[in-house]
Amino acid sequence: MSTAALPATPPAMPAPAFGAAMHALLARLFPICRSITGDGVRQTLAIVREYLPALQVHEVPSGTPALDWTVPAEWSIREAWVKNAAGERVIDFRAHNLHVLQYSTPVGGWFARAELEEHLFSLPQQPDLIPYRTSYYQPNWGFCLSHHQREQLQDEYYEVCIDSTLDAAGSLTYGELVLPGASEEEVLLSCHCCHPSLANDNLSGLVVAVFLAQELARQPRRYTYRLVLGPGTIGSIVWLSRNPEAVGRIRHGLVLTLLGGPGGFTYKQSRHTTAEVDQAAALVLRDFGAAYEVRPWLPYGYDERQYGSPGFNLPVGCLSRTPFGEFAEYHTSADDVGFVQPTQLAESLSLTQALCEALEANRSYRNLSPYGEPQLGRRGLYKGVGGGQEGADWQMALLWLLNLSDGSHSLLQVAQQSGLPVALLHRAARALKAVELLQPL
Amino acid sequence: MSTAALPATPPAMPAPAFGAAMHALLARLFPICRSITGDGVRQTLAIVREYLPALQVHEVPSGTPALDWTVPAEWSIREAWVKNAAGERVIDFRAHNLHVLQYSTPVGGWFARAELEEHLFSLPQQPDLIPYRTSYYQPNWGFCLSHHQREQLQDEYYEVCIDSTLDAAGSLTYGELVLPGASEEEVLLSCHCCHPSLANDNLSGLVVAVFLAQELARQPRRYTYRLVLGPGTIGSIVWLSRNPEAVGRIRHGLVLTLLGGPGGFTYKQSRHTTAEVDQAAALVLRDFGAAYEVRPWLPYGYDERQYGSPGFNLPVGCLSRTPFGEFAEYHTSADDVGFVQPTQLAESLSLTQALCEALEANRSYRNLSPYGEPQLGRRGLYKGVGGGQEGADWQMALLWLLNLSDGSHSLLQVAQQSGLPVALLHRAARALKAVELLQPL
Amino acid sequence: MSTAALPATPPAMPAPAFGAAMHALLARLFPICRSITGDGVRQTLAIVREYLPALQVHEVPSGTPALDWTVPAEWSIREAWVKNAAGERVIDFRAHNLHVLQYSTPVGGWFARAELEEHLFSLPQQPDLIPYRTSYYQPNWGFCLSHHQREQLQDEYYEVCIDSTLDAAGSLTYGELVLPGASEEEVLLSCHCCHPSLANDNLSGLVVAVFLAQELARQPRRYTYRLVLGPGTIGSIVWLSRNPEAVGRIRHGLVLTLLGGPGGFTYKQSRHTTAEVDQAAALVLRDFGAAYEVRPWLPYGYDERQYGSPGFNLPVGCLSRTPFGEFAEYHTSADDVGFVQPTQLAESLSLTQALCEALEANRSYRNLSPYGEPQLGRRGLYKGVGGGQEGADWQMALLWLLNLSDGSHSLLQVAQQSGLPVALLHRAARALKAVELLQPL
Repeated sequence: MSTAALPATPPAMPAPAFGAAMHALLARLFPICRSITGDGVRQTLAIVREYLPALQVHEVPSGTPALDWTVPAEWSIREAWVKNAAGERVIDFRAHNLHVLQYSTPVGGWFARAELEEHLFSLPQQPDLIPYRTSYYQPNWGFCLSHHQREQLQDEYYEVCIDSTLDAAGSLTYGELVLPGASEEEVLLSCHCCHPSLANDNLSGLVVAVFLAQELARQPRRYTYRLVLGPGTIGSIVWLSRNPEAVGRIRHGLVLTLLGGPGGFTYKQSRHTTAEVDQAAALVLRDFGAAYEVRPWLPYGYDERQYGSPGFNLPVGCLSRTPFGEFAEYHTSADDVGFVQPTQLAESLSLTQALCEALEANRSYRNLSPYGEPQLGRRGLYKGVGGGQEGADWQMALLWLLNLSDGSHSLLQVAQQSGLPVALLHRAARALKAVELLQPL
Repeated sequence: MSTAALPATPPAMPAPAFGAAMHALLARLFPICRSITGDGVRQTLAIVREYLPALQVHEVPSGTPALDWTVPAEWSIREAWVKNAAGERVIDFRAHNLHVLQYSTPVGGWFARAELEEHLFSLPQQPDLIPYRTSYYQPNWGFCLSHHQREQLQDEYYEVCIDSTLDAAGSLTYGELVLPGASEEEVLLSCHCCHPSLANDNLSGLVVAVFLAQELARQPRRYTYRLVLGPGTIGSIVWLSRNPEAVGRIRHGLVLTLLGGPGGFTYKQSRHTTAEVDQAAALVLRDFGAAYEVRPWLPYGYDERQYGSPGFNLPVGCLSRTPFGEFAEYHTSADDVGFVQPTQLAESLSLTQALCEALEANRSYRNLSPYGEPQLGRRGLYKGVGGGQEGADWQMALLWLLNLSDGSHSLLQVAQQSGLPVALLHRAARALKAVELLQPL
Repeated sequence: MSTAALPATPPAMPAPAFGAAMHALLARLFPICRSITGDGVRQTLAIVREYLPALQVHEVPSGTPALDWTVPAEWSIREAWVKNAAGERVIDFRAHNLHVLQYSTPVGGWFARAELEEHLFSLPQQPDLIPYRTSYYQPNWGFCLSHHQREQLQDEYYEVCIDSTLDAAGSLTYGELVLPGASEEEVLLSCHCCHPSLANDNLSGLVVAVFLAQELARQPRRYTYRLVLGPGTIGSIVWLSRNPEAVGRIRHGLVLTLLGGPGGFTYKQSRHTTAEVDQAAALVLRDFGAAYEVRPWLPYGYDERQYGSPGFNLPVGCLSRTPFGEFAEYHTSADDVGFVQPTQLAESLSLTQALCEALEANRSYRNLSPYGEPQLGRRGLYKGVGGGQEGADWQMALLWLLNLSDGSHSLLQVAQQSGLPVALLHRAARALKAVELLQPL
C-alpha cells in the first residue's frame, strides 16, 4: 500500500494556558457557599456571565410545581456555630462552608452533648476531613466536622446557633445559555452547581462547560448547543418541566461532572446505551489516548437520571473522570482547589471539544462512484511515494469511507468498523467530498 | 445514596424438615421395579396419590398409535435367574432389580457359557457395580451384573430363566395433575418415572416435583400448573398425542431430573434458548447462590426432546444437578438411596419454587409518573438514615423499576440489566404498585 | 446414546498425486514475465487452456473505459539492463523478471550514479532478495535488485537501457470459464494472474483454481461456477464493467490467492461479513483440521475490493494461507518455486473443494414428522449396538437435523449450532431424505 498526502492536522489540545485560566475561575468560585437555592448560586452565575455574557439567569418561585416535585423554600445561612461551656466557638461555619448541614433549619440554645451528638456528622475512617452532608427534603439541622475535632467535644453542654432562613417566598436559580447552530436540533450540556466549596464536585464540570461554551461560540455549529447550570435533581426537574419544546429538540446530551481530578475518564452511557452520543463518546475516548472506561446506564448518579427518566428518555450520557464515591476526597473537605489541577481541566476541555466535533462530524455519505473503487491516483489522493503509519491510515480512511458510504453507515460507524480515528475519517470525508466522490446525506 | 425500608423478607428455603420427608418418599419408592409400562409405574403413582390426591392416573392400551410411535406391549417380570451347574442361583433378579435387562423377552433352558455371555452386561471399568440396561424396542433378553460377579462364571453350562410377559393387551400408565390458576396459560412440569431402583435418576426429580406441586397447591397461582409423570420418551409422546389443547396453552415448561445428587445445578435451555423460562432459570440460578451452569439446547437428553420437537416447539427447559453421563454412579447400582441426600432434595425444591415464583412475578409495568424521578421521600420509600448493602439494593431496585417500566421491559429483563435479584425486584414492584407509581400491564 | 450405521465416507483429500501435478503446472508458468497486460498473460492463459479447454480468452482494447478506470496501454518489455563503465551488465532483466520495474517506460543513455539511484529499488533489511515493484499508473522507469548488488555499484556513470513499449493500440487480456450448473445462480472464483515470477503470489491461487475447476467440471453441480483469471484491480474492474447480467447472478464468490505457502489458512470475510460464503468458509475451516483464522472485511487487499465495492456489494470473500505482507518472502525473489510445496497446493485444493461442497449442500429442510421425534429404529437409523465418537456424531447429526428442520435453519446454521461437521450433516440429511423424514425446501 502506498501512502498519500495528509491534510494538515487540525490544532490538537488546547494550550496549557487554558488550564491556568480554567483553574483561576475555579479558585474564584470555590469560596462561595452554594446550595440548591440561595445567593450562592446567584453569585456563581454572575461570575459565569463575565465569561458567557449571553447566559440567562432564571428565578423560579418556591412552591412552583415541577413534574412530581415542588420548588423548595429558599435557604439562606448567615451564621452557624457551636460554643463550648467556656464560650469558645468549637465549630464555626465561617471557618468552612462544609461545617453546616445544608438546609439546616434555624436553631439556638444550649444542648446536652448527647443531644448535640445526634446532629453531628464526621468520618471516623477519615478523621482529618470534614464531610459534606445535606438534608434538603427532611427538616433537620446539624454540623459536619472532622472526627478529630469531634473527639475533643467533652463538655457537658454546648451552645448552638444556626442563623438560617427557609423562605417560602424565595426562589430557585439556574443559568441557561443557547448557542444557535445551523440546525434547530440541540446538544444539551448540563452541570450541577449546587455544591459549596467542593472543587472537583462540581466546579470542575462547570468550568469545563464554561470554557467549552466559549470555544463553541467561536466556531460554526451544525447543532444548537444549550448549556444548563442548575442545582442537582431539582434543577434539571425544573428545567425539564419548563421547556417541553426544547426537550423535543434534544438529539444528544452530556452531563459534565468531576472533570478535574487525577483519574482516567469515565463515560456512563445514556439510557439508550447505543445512542449517537454513546457511540461518539466511546470512539472519542478510544482515540483520545488517555485511560478511560465506558460504563452502562444506571438510573442513579447525576441529572442524567432525570433526562433519562422513561417519559423523557433523552440520550444524555455522563462524562466524568473517576466517578462519585470512588475517590477518597469525594464529598469531603479534601476536594479542594489543590485537588484539581490545571492540566486535568485542560485535558477534560480538550476531550469535550473532541466529543462535540465528533457529533458535528457524524453524517452518512453516499459514494458517488460506487461501482468498483474510484481511481484515487488521478484525483491526487493516491501517492506513489510516502510511508509511515499516518500515511497508511489516511489511505485506509479513504478506502473505508468509499466502501461504507452506501447511505447506511454513519461516520461513527465507519470509525467503529475500521478502527480508524474519528478525526482522521472526518478529514478524509472532507477530502473525498472536495473531489466529488462523497456526498453527505 | 440513602437506604429505605425493606419489606419483610418472604420465607426463604424450605425447612430441612422437608428434606427428611422428601427422602423418606424416595426411599419408599426405591425398591419398586419400574419400567416404561407395568405395575411398577402403577405402584409408584399410587404412592404419589397419597401426597397429591388429585393426581389422575391414565392407562393407554398397548398398540395405540401416538405420533410416530405405537404404545408398546406391557412388560411384566416375575422371576429372572441364572443357575450354575450346581443349581446355585449365580444371578437373581430378587437380589436387585437391575439384574434383568429391561423388557427382556421370556427365556428358559440351558446355555453354553459363550451363548450366555452374549446376554450379559457388566462394567469392566467399575467392576463392583451393576449397570442399568434396556431393550424396549428390539426384542432381546439379558442380565446385568457386576464385572467381578461375571468373572466368577466359569462353568461350561448355565440354566437360565426369565419369567416375563410382553402383553399386547396391556397398557401404558402415566399420572397427571392440574393445579388451576388465575389464567388458563400453563406451566408444564414433567418427570420420567420409568427407572427401577435408581434414586437420582429419577426418583429425585419425581420427589421434588411432588413436593413442589404440594407447595404450589397451597398458594394463589397466576398460572395453571400441569404435572406429568410418565415413562421417558414414549410417556411424553403419548401425553403430547392425547392433549393437543393443553399443548396450546403451555407457556413455560421444565423437565425435572437428577435433582438429588451432590453436584451443582445445570439448566439446559429450551429449544427457543431465550424463552421466558430460559431467562427465569438463568436469573434464579444467578441469584440462588449455589454453583450452576446454563447449557445450550441440545436435541438429546430427556423429554424436552419431545416437547421441543419442531412441530410442538414448546419452551421447555431441563433442570438437573450434574447431568446424565457425567457422574460415576449414573445408570448403575451406585445410584442408590444413599447417593441422594435430604439436604440436596430440599435445596432442589427451594430452587424450583424460586423458579416458579420468578415466572409468576414476571410482568411488564408502566411507570405512572414517568417524567423525571418521582419523589420517593414523600411516599415513604426514601429514608434519610440507614445503610448496608440490602438497603442500597432496595433503593436501586426502586430506581431501576421506575426507570425501565416503560411497558417494554419485563421484570426479568430489569433483573438482567440491573443485576439485582428477581425476588427483590418483585418486592420493590409490589411496593411501587402500592403507592400507585407502577401499574402492571 | 446408541450409535447407528454410518454411510460410507466420501473420498477425503485429493491424492498427493494432485500436488505433484499442481506443482508441475506452477513450475511451468513461473518463468513467464506477466504484467497487467501483454504477452505474459496470453502465454499463461494458453497453458491454462491445456487444462481447461473451455476457457475463453478476452482481449479488451487499451483506452476502453471501465467503470471509473480506463484500460491502460499494453506494456511489452524486451530488454532491460544497466552496464557499468567497463560495459559489464551489472543488472539484467534476462537474469530475473523482477529486475525491471513493472510498466517501466523506455529509456536509454548514460546516467550519473546519483541519478540512477533514484530509479533503483532494494531491500536493506533483506539484502539478498530482489523486490517486486510496479508503477502502472504513474509513468516511471526503474530497476529492482538485491541490496548487496546495489552496494557494489560504485562507478560514477552507468549506461541504462530499457527496451519497452507502452502500446495505446494494445489490449488487456483475461480468461473466463463458465461451468453451467442446475441453477443459473453463480459461484464466482477469481484469481489475479499479473505477477511475474512470483510463485505463491499468485501462481498458487491460479493453479488451485485450475484444478478445482477441473474437479468441479467432473461432477454434478447445483450452481453455475465462473472462473475469472485476470490482472489485479483493472482485471476485475474490466470484468465487472462488461458483465452486468452475470454480476446479478452471483450468489457466492471467492478470491483465491497465496494458497501455496507454508502457513495456516486465512479467510477474509466478504463485505457482508455474514453471507452464506462467510458462514461456509468459517465452518469448513473449523471442520478441516488445519490451523486457520477468519478475519473481518477490509476494503484493502485483492479483487474482493472491487467485487465488494458498495455499488456491486457482492458476497465475495478471500481465501489464502498467510496473507500478503505477513511473510518474509512476500513480493520478493524468495517467493519462488521452492517456496510452494506440492502438499500445500493439494491441501488448499482440498479445502476449496470442501468449501464448494458446503455451498452446494447448504439447503433448508422441512421435517416431515415434526411432532415428537420420529422413531428412527424402525427406519434402520438407530442401532442398538455400536460405539465410538463417529457413531455418536452420526446419531446427533440425525437428531439435530430433525430438530432444526423447520424451514428456517439452513444446513450451515445446523452445523454452527450443533458443532457437527458440515459434511457429516450433509450425509445425514441425505439419509433422512431417503427415508422421507426430510424434504428440501
